[in-house]
Amino acid sequence: MSNPASGDSSNAKMERMRAQPPRGMRDLLPDEVALRDWATNVIIETYKTFGFTRIETPAVESIELLKRGEGGENLSLIYEILKRGEKLEKALADTSSGGVDKDALSDLGLRFDLTVPLARFYGNNNANIPNPFKSIQVGSVWRAESPQAGRFRQFTQCDIDIIGVKSNFAELDLLQATASALSKLGFDKFIIRINDRRILSELALHCQFDPTRLDSVFIAVDKLDKIGLDGIAQELRNGGHDPAAVDKLVELFKPIQPLINDTTLSGSNQFNRIAETLPKFASNEAVEELKQLIEAIDSGVDGKFTLAFDPTLVRGMGYYTGPIFEVGVPGLPYSVAGGGRYDKMIEKFVGREVPACGFSIGFERIIGVMQERGFKPPTASQKIAFIYDPGRDTLKDVFKGQNSLRKDGVTVSLVPKKKELKKQIDQLGEQGFTSFVVFKGDPDNLEIKTL
Amino acid sequence: MSNPASGDSSNAKMERMRAQPPRGMRDLLPDEVALRDWATNVIIETYKTFGFTRIETPAVESIELLKRGEGGENLSLIYEILKRGEKLEKALADTSSGGVDKDALSDLGLRFDLTVPLARFYGNNNANIPNPFKSIQVGSVWRAESPQAGRFRQFTQCDIDIIGVKSNFAELDLLQATASALSKLGFDKFIIRINDRRILSELALHCQFDPTRLDSVFIAVDKLDKIGLDGIAQELRNGGHDPAAVDKLVELFKPIQPLINDTTLSGSNQFNRIAETLPKFASNEAVEELKQLIEAIDSGVDGKFTLAFDPTLVRGMGYYTGPIFEVGVPGLPYSVAGGGRYDKMIEKFVGREVPACGFSIGFERIIGVMQERGFKPPTASQKIAFIYDPGRDTLKDVFKGQNSLRKDGVTVSLVPKKKELKKQIDQLGEQGFTSFVVFKGDPDNLEIKTL
Repeated sequence: MSNPASGDSSNAKMERMRAQPPRGMRDLLPDEVALRDWATNVIIETYKTFGFTRIETPAVESIELLKRGEGGENLSLIYEILKRGEKLEKALADTSSGGVDKDALSDLGLRFDLTVPLARFYGNNNANIPNPFKSIQVGSVWRAESPQAGRFRQFTQCDIDIIGVKSNFAELDLLQATASALSKLGFDKFIIRINDRRILSELALHCQFDPTRLDSVFIAVDKLDKIGLDGIAQELRNGGHDPAAVDKLVELFKPIQPLINDTTLSGSNQFNRIAETLPKFASNEAVEELKQLIEAIDSGVDGKFTLAFDPTLVRGMGYYTGPIFEVGVPGLPYSVAGGGRYDKMIEKFVGREVPACGFSIGFERIIGVMQERGFKPPTASQKIAFIYDPGRDTLKDVFKGQNSLRKDGVTVSLVPKKKELKKQIDQLGEQGFTSFVVFKGDPDNLEIKTL
Repeated sequence: MSNPASGDSSNAKMERMRAQPPRGMRDLLPDEVALRDWATNVIIETYKTFGFTRIETPAVESIELLKRGEGGENLSLIYEILKRGEKLEKALADTSSGGVDKDALSDLGLRFDLTVPLARFYGNNNANIPNPFKSIQVGSVWRAESPQAGRFRQFTQCDIDIIGVKSNFAELDLLQATASALSKLGFDKFIIRINDRRILSELALHCQFDPTRLDSVFIAVDKLDKIGLDGIAQELRNGGHDPAAVDKLVELFKPIQPLINDTTLSGSNQFNRIAETLPKFASNEAVEELKQLIEAIDSGVDGKFTLAFDPTLVRGMGYYTGPIFEVGVPGLPYSVAGGGRYDKMIEKFVGREVPACGFSIGFERIIGVMQERGFKPPTASQKIAFIYDPGRDTLKDVFKGQNSLRKDGVTVSLVPKKKELKKQIDQLGEQGFTSFVVFKGDPDNLEIKTL
C-alpha cells in the first residue's frame, strides 16, 4: 500500500503485461494438478506403510552447501540468489581482482536435488529423529538447464532415503517400497537394474585403467545405451585411456550385454550367468551382497517386475559408494527411478561415518507416462453445479438453496447463469460436473438434473 | 561425477560443514510435516467440495512481474535471482552509470505471494480454464524479512480465488468455503470482520482528507488495534494531514469502535447499528452489498462463527477495490485468514477488466495454533516394527517374514536390532509404533506384541 497504484492504472491498461511464466518454467492447470496430487498421495501413502516419514527442507540453501562438489554437472546449473543490502554493496564495491567477483554476489541458491539438503538436514536434526531414519521427501528442485520438450527448470523429485543402516537390508527396503509405489501407480513389468559402484571400480582396475581417472571411465560406460560398446571404446581412446585397457573392457562387456536385458531369465539365474563371466575379484563382498538382494526379492515378486544385474550401470552422481539401481519401463527410452548407496556424504555434517542410501522416483517422467496413457485419477462421485441468476436471485436464497445440497462426498459449486444456458450446461459436463440445478429462486424447491 | 570427490574426502573429515539451514529458513521434522499435510489436505478437500480446483505456478517469476507495484512493502523483500552466463557478464561490464547497476543483475525472483502469480496465470491460461474460474493454491512464498520468533523467510500460503464473478455471490462463496475449512480444522467461535474499500474511501473523503493521499490515511487506520484512535490521530497529524479532517475521523470512529467487537449482537443487528452511525454516502452500493452478504450468512451459520462489520478494517495490500475480510480467533493477537476483492489487477494481463476476489488462510499461524493446542493428526491404526538382526538374519527370510504382515492400512517397518533391545522397544513406542515383532529367523513363525 505504500506505493499507491491508482495513478498508474490508466497507463497499465495501455501496456499489456507478459503473461507467460519465465522461460523453462510452466503453469500447471487443474487436470494436471489433480493427477499429480493423486500420484503424490499414492507414493507418500505407500512409503508410509514401509515406515518412512515425510520431512521438508527449505528450497533455499547456502551456496557453500550447494557447491560442495557432490552435485556433478548440476553444480553449473544452480540458480544463485543475489545478496541484499550492505552485503551486495560490499560485493559490488570490491574490485580488487580487476572487476566485480561474480562468486561474491550470492550466498544463497535454489536446491538442485533433495539429497544434498537431506545430508544437511540429518546433520542438523539427528538428535531429534529416530535412528535409523527413514525419510520421504517430495518437493521442487531447480536447474537452469537448456529448455527442451518435456524438460523444465523447476520439477518435482520424490525421494526415500534410509540413514543409519549399513547392511543391504536398507536396499531391500528401498527396492520393495519403490516397486510397490510404482505398482500402485499402474506400472508393471518394469525392470530394476542393479549394480554396485565397487564392482564397477574393480572391473575398471582389472582392465588396468588409470586408478586416478576411473570417473571418466564411468562417464563413458554410462553411455552404453546411447552409443554402444564401440562408441564407449572410441570415447575412452579419444580420452587418452590406455588402448589395451579399453580392449579389455570391451572384451569383458561383450558377453554381458545380451544377458542384461534377457527377460527370459529370472533374477537369480540372470545374476549367476553374468557373475560367471566376471573376473574373480580380490573382494567378492559387493557381488555377494547383490546376489543376496536379488535372491531375496526374486523369491517374492510374483512376476510384477524383473530384477536384473547390470555391471555396466553407472548412475550419474559422484557420491555413490555401493549398490546402485535404476528402474526402466518397457518402451521408454529413459529410467523412471534410480538410486543407490552414499556412505560418505553425511559424515561431513556430523563428523562420523553415517551409512545412507536412497531411491528417487522421476516424478515428472511418471506423470508424463500416465498422461500419455490417458490415466484419470478418481474424482468426487457427485459434483453439482448450482446455477443462480446474479441479476435476480438474493444471496440469502442462494445460500440456503445450495446449503441444502451439501453433504459428505458431494461437491456443490455456485455458478452464475450465462446467457446461453444450454451451452453453459454442456460446458459444465465437460468440466466434470455430474449434475446441475438451475435455481428458480425458491430454496425449498430444487430440481437436480443429471449431466 | 565430473568433479571426483574422492581426493577431498580426508580433508572433508577435518572440516565440519555447517548443518543449519540458511538464516530465517527451517527444517520441518516428521511430526510437523504430518500435521501440515493433514491440515493441507483438510483445507484442499473442503475447498474442492465448493467447486474450487487446484493449480500451481512456478516459484520463480520475472522480476518485472514481481516488482509491478501491487505488492506493497513486500516489494522490498523479494529474493532476486542472479543472472547467468553472458547476461551476467554484460550487466557487470556496464558501468556507464558510474558503477554496476544493481537492478541489472537479476531478471528473475522468488514469488512473495500467490495473488500476483495467479493474475499472470489467468492471463496465460484463461482460454483453457472454466469461466468463472475458482482456484485453490497452496504453496511456498519467500520474503527476506528480519527473522523473528515464529516468522520465517519461506512460508506456506493457502489461497482460494474466484475470477470472473462481479457480484457479491463470489464473496459469499469464499466466506462460506473458508469458514467451513477453518471449522474442519477445529477452529470455532471465530470472528470474520468485513469492510469494503469503497466505504473506507468514502469515509475519508467525507472527513475531507486530501483525495490524493488516501492510502496514507488507510495505513494509519489499519493500526487501530495496536495504537488506538488517539494513536491514529497523532500519526495522521504528524503526517501532515488536515487537523480538521483528523478530528472528524476520530469523531466518526468513536461510537463505532465498541460496536465492532460486540459479540452480543448478531451479524445483522451489529451491521445495522454501525451503519446507522455512518454518514449517508453519495453511493450506498457498497454498504448495501455488505448488508446482503451479512444477512445471508447470518441466516445459516448456527453460531459457529460471527460476522462483524468493521468500517476501520483496512487490509495491507494496495490492490483491493471492494469488500475486504479478515478472520480473528478469540485470544489471538493476529488474524488467521484474510482477503478481498481486487477487480483491477488481472486486466493488465488480458486487456479487459476481469473481476476477482480471494481469501487466504494464514497457514503458518493456523499450524502454530494447532501445535500450541497439542493437536495430533490421525495416524495409521496399526504400525508394526519388524526388528531383525542384521548379523544373523538373511535378506530372504526377513523379506518373507515382513511381507506376511503387510495388508491394507498396516504399516510394517524394517528396523535393525540394537544392542539394548528393551530400550529400543521403548523408543519405538515413542515413535508411534503400535506393535513389534522380534524376528527369530523363521518367517513362518512371527510373534506380534503390542506396544
